[in-house]
Amino acid sequence: MNKFLELALAGVQQLVPYVPGKPVDELQRELGLSEVVKLASNENPLGTGDKVLAAIQATMPELTRYPDGSGFGLKAALSAKLAVAPSSITLGNGSSEILELVMRTFVSPEHEVVFSQHAFALYPILTQAVGAQARIVPAKNYGHDLQAMLATISDKTRLVFIANPNNPTGTLLASDELESFISALPAHVLCVLDEAYYEFVAPSDRTESLAWPQRYPNLIVTRTFSKAYGLAGLRIGYGISSDDVADLLNRVRQPFNSNMLALAAAEAALTDADYLAKTLAVNNAGMTQLTSAFEDLGLDWIPSSGNFVSVDVKQNALPVYEALLLKGIIVRPVANYEMPQHLRISIGTERENQMFITALKQVLQGV
Amino acid sequence: MNKFLELALAGVQQLVPYVPGKPVDELQRELGLSEVVKLASNENPLGTGDKVLAAIQATMPELTRYPDGSGFGLKAALSAKLAVAPSSITLGNGSSEILELVMRTFVSPEHEVVFSQHAFALYPILTQAVGAQARIVPAKNYGHDLQAMLATISDKTRLVFIANPNNPTGTLLASDELESFISALPAHVLCVLDEAYYEFVAPSDRTESLAWPQRYPNLIVTRTFSKAYGLAGLRIGYGISSDDVADLLNRVRQPFNSNMLALAAAEAALTDADYLAKTLAVNNAGMTQLTSAFEDLGLDWIPSSGNFVSVDVKQNALPVYEALLLKGIIVRPVANYEMPQHLRISIGTERENQMFITALKQVLQGV
Repeated sequence: MNKFLELALAGVQQLVPYVPGKPVDELQRELGLSEVVKLASNENPLGTGDKVLAAIQATMPELTRYPDGSGFGLKAALSAKLAVAPSSITLGNGSSEILELVMRTFVSPEHEVVFSQHAFALYPILTQAVGAQARIVPAKNYGHDLQAMLATISDKTRLVFIANPNNPTGTLLASDELESFISALPAHVLCVLDEAYYEFVAPSDRTESLAWPQRYPNLIVTRTFSKAYGLAGLRIGYGISSDDVADLLNRVRQPFNSNMLALAAAEAALTDADYLAKTLAVNNAGMTQLTSAFEDLGLDWIPSSGNFVSVDVKQNALPVYEALLLKGIIVRPVANYEMPQHLRISIGTERENQMFITALKQVLQGV
Repeated sequence: MNKFLELALAGVQQLVPYVPGKPVDELQRELGLSEVVKLASNENPLGTGDKVLAAIQATMPELTRYPDGSGFGLKAALSAKLAVAPSSITLGNGSSEILELVMRTFVSPEHEVVFSQHAFALYPILTQAVGAQARIVPAKNYGHDLQAMLATISDKTRLVFIANPNNPTGTLLASDELESFISALPAHVLCVLDEAYYEFVAPSDRTESLAWPQRYPNLIVTRTFSKAYGLAGLRIGYGISSDDVADLLNRVRQPFNSNMLALAAAEAALTDADYLAKTLAVNNAGMTQLTSAFEDLGLDWIPSSGNFVSVDVKQNALPVYEALLLKGIIVRPVANYEMPQHLRISIGTERENQMFITALKQVLQGV
């Protein structure tokens, strides 16, 4: 029994932390494996890009200095690329920190937070951490049921999370449907539109969401450099909102929440069109490779707009996950998302995907 | 008028963010200066160490991966070096994040937080952010008045901050005096002992504070890699506490709050005894250089155990600060610490210190 539990805030007392994907070196330590393939955390399989490496190289002699707490350079680069004002940007230690900042700025124990079943695991955790009440709306075909979510909103609701594409299901909402929802929100309700996987969406399916905060000042769009830009290890993401909301989020964040190398690397990553193009090409090819294999194996999967796909293994997925681990393949069980028969597979390189497919076949055939 | 102010939490509505030291490139942009000397943020003047550079070089190809959220390697290294259990360690995005985690885990609007006049500016800001009540105890000779602080503790007190050495005054509490204070705290009061400048304290004056959380489980000692270890830009610090407190803090932190390069760099920095020795030698020499100059100028200063010294310029310090800026020298005004006639000078290299001294002489002589 933790002796300090009763001194902790009510929300914290019930808090069960997020479980990350198993790290490669942890599995290597445990099983003495020389090669491990990790397709568990929706990471970019290409390795760090050359422009990012050069930016880090140029910046690392300066690490004795504090980062620029205003993020001047990165905000200017984002502003130019995305056609948004620097004053509308909040930089974070990953976009997950932006989600947390929104909670800490606006949400307290008397509030309710609305999100969907099967939505990103941080939403319930962040809600719990501030002691607010989660209102989880049943999903429709593994995606957000926006009508039902709207019907759930009450006077107590302060925040709605929408993940588009959603993780771990990969489902995507249509632009018009999403805008109708946002426009219908009452003035006392903020909405976080979590677009961590935005860059993977087919261009014809993308929303023009960054223009929306001008029209709907209670909207905060979040994006990240952790996925398509390949900077998960450095922790850098951002929110785009009305200037008023950005002002408040920037008051609450720590003055040096974004580290110096992350700021430099993200600025460099924005200029590396080749890396992004290659990332999307590898992802598209890998998605075809994996779903073709699922089809061969007679398995259903949820059509995904992200860099991952969730497959129904038609049995309790946990033993399948564990059998794959023994073969050096890390994927993600999603029982904690109420999807006990699914595994979420991050798209890897062609070779990594093939190693997973081979191992999955063996496991399903009991080899 | 911010339209979202009334939706923000009560504490956030009153929040005025921390003001960092002026960045070098900002002053260069403003004044078109080619050389700027920054002695404003208690940064290590030596530049990044070779072992850290090598660790970053070796790690940066892996940045597409998430960091190890458990901090396995760095915790093991800290455990070995400091003789504390890995389970007693909480890693943070700078030690400032550990301070914030303590607030978010234990302190809510009905609580009071006790700290000293002239203490580190983040304490009132973090207190305000969670809507708690600050109880600021008048200082004694610019340092903590522990008797008065103890007398201020009430049933509502949940947390006490002690900075040792204190920033911006550099004052140091004796070990026995400090331990008496901690041992006298009621069980419902947590204490953060902020030792960001610990490594600069003369060996004979240091406390054995890391052994204390075993005896006083409501104590959290925080330290940082930002100062003596020269990693301010990367954001990495830690707390040492009872396992129970560490367990709660680790529940509240983001799963990937410490970035991959910070983890690798900090582990490397711990092995670089030469860099640390050189840092302390440069600091000691620089302290003598600066205080001798103050003596020549007939100025009083507060004897400091840190890598900075606060000097009384015997007039409103702000115009002096601004005149120094025009000469390309950035120091820190501390009027926000209720020290309107002082400037805080971070110790630089011999050359940087000399440039500051020359400029200060000119400014005080009206040149």
